[in-house]
Amino acid sequence: MKWTMALCLAILSLLVLDGPAPAKVVGQTVEYRQNGTLLKGYLAYDDAVKGRRPGVLVVHEFWGLNDFARQRADKLAEMGYTALAVDMYGEGKVTRDRAEATKLAGHVRSTPLMRERAQAGLKVLRKHNLVDPQRLAAIGFCFGGTTVLELAYSGADVKGVVSFHGGLTAPKPEDRKRLKAKILILHGAEDPHVKAEEIKAFQEAMRQAGADWQMIYYGGAVHSFANPEAGRDKSSGVAYDPKAAARSWQHMQLSLQEIFQNKMGLDG
Amino acid sequence: MKWTMALCLAILSLLVLDGPAPAKVVGQTVEYRQNGTLLKGYLAYDDAVKGRRPGVLVVHEFWGLNDFARQRADKLAEMGYTALAVDMYGEGKVTRDRAEATKLAGHVRSTPLMRERAQAGLKVLRKHNLVDPQRLAAIGFCFGGTTVLELAYSGADVKGVVSFHGGLTAPKPEDRKRLKAKILILHGAEDPHVKAEEIKAFQEAMRQAGADWQMIYYGGAVHSFANPEAGRDKSSGVAYDPKAAARSWQHMQLSLQEIFQNKMGLDG
Repeated sequence: MKWTMALCLAILSLLVLDGPAPAKVVGQTVEYRQNGTLLKGYLAYDDAVKGRRPGVLVVHEFWGLNDFARQRADKLAEMGYTALAVDMYGEGKVTRDRAEATKLAGHVRSTPLMRERAQAGLKVLRKHNLVDPQRLAAIGFCFGGTTVLELAYSGADVKGVVSFHGGLTAPKPEDRKRLKAKILILHGAEDPHVKAEEIKAFQEAMRQAGADWQMIYYGGAVHSFANPEAGRDKSSGVAYDPKAAARSWQHMQLSLQEIFQNKMGLDG
Repeated sequence: MKWTMALCLAILSLLVLDGPAPAKVVGQTVEYRQNGTLLKGYLAYDDAVKGRRPGVLVVHEFWGLNDFARQRADKLAEMGYTALAVDMYGEGKVTRDRAEATKLAGHVRSTPLMRERAQAGLKVLRKHNLVDPQRLAAIGFCFGGTTVLELAYSGADVKGVVSFHGGLTAPKPEDRKRLKAKILILHGAEDPHVKAEEIKAFQEAMRQAGADWQMIYYGGAVHSFANPEAGRDKSSGVAYDPKAAARSWQHMQLSLQEIFQNKMGLDG
């Protein structure tokens, strides 16, 4: 009788207790180089998940690789992805000064550095032993949103890119042939930093490129809607919008599920 | 020993076998009246789900209440909702003739019938014993998309409305005060039946109304993208787009989950 009971209890405990192991996100600084410049990224993955999994690049706002970007990487890791928040400025430079941020972002945006540093990060992610090199994507916020578009325009081997309140640069004619990533634009409908002409030119270029693109307008949302650090003053044109933040994060998850053909996120 | 084994097996079988009962969608014609006109709707629900649940109104394309609308109701029922596909034309009138459809839709659209018949359907849904009257929404396709907007503008007590490739009428000034439903517009970015000026006026009115609105543009999609019956000739301006159809259906599910605060759909 005892062994029967013991066996049953063992089976019961397996059935009842053996759900997925609790997520244990590991985050670590990763150093790599782009053309001699030391870049300090942040890599996150769930230690309870085994083996290679889709990899997602995270590109920070114009403030640099700060906690907000790291937290996005952690959240992606909780869903089961391996995420790398890249460093676009070198040496992990971060600022809270708007003028300095504008200068740093402007320099990277106006030179080949924007594509090169995003590609350098992608290379690190692709080679990681917890990443399936066939299944890569990139997400970015504001400046980072522009960056992931440029990464896609460079013909990088990512299945998709997702821009949260990013600048909408249009691909150049030579970019259009290279572009193969699916594009998802998550846009604050009242964002004063993205002009109507830019939207029009972007959409027109998507058409000409025959791109797979989607663009979601969040009513009432302005620039930086996904970032709680952006404050609540919409009249400034830059503000957190919890509703748009939650919706856009879910829309991103759906898109990642689609391009990777998995069920990660949404239930987590 | 035997009773121990029996008990364990009983518990095991409960744990292993007692998942959710398989969906068994029941569909039935429902007759109701609007100002003397007999309307023949189609109600669908999952017989395996018990008790009251959120109710979703489905409004057909300008062809009338055909199989496509019925199938949408069935799919919503599979997710666990009670769905009512309404009859906007009376006597369940359906056509395959474009000229006749245009005439039928034009008559309803240009008179108070559009709001009144949608409201009549909503009343039937609200009173059904398998519907939680506090949790109602409406979805519609093409003509039906316009209809659910008008329903929202009438101040109807729906938590949200979702328009698939619908016409984008803007709310009148007096509608703006009444509007309380969340609005989700699922739009083919190449839809020639929705003019840029209409989009602009709609979005501007949403702003003025302080509405909770979202609008999703599906690149490459034209009118009727969600309907497999629409053919594949995009140059005609009306065509099925399987990718936009799948994405829009998922975006609708996310939105219903949000407004009803449940987890129905997406996993089903």
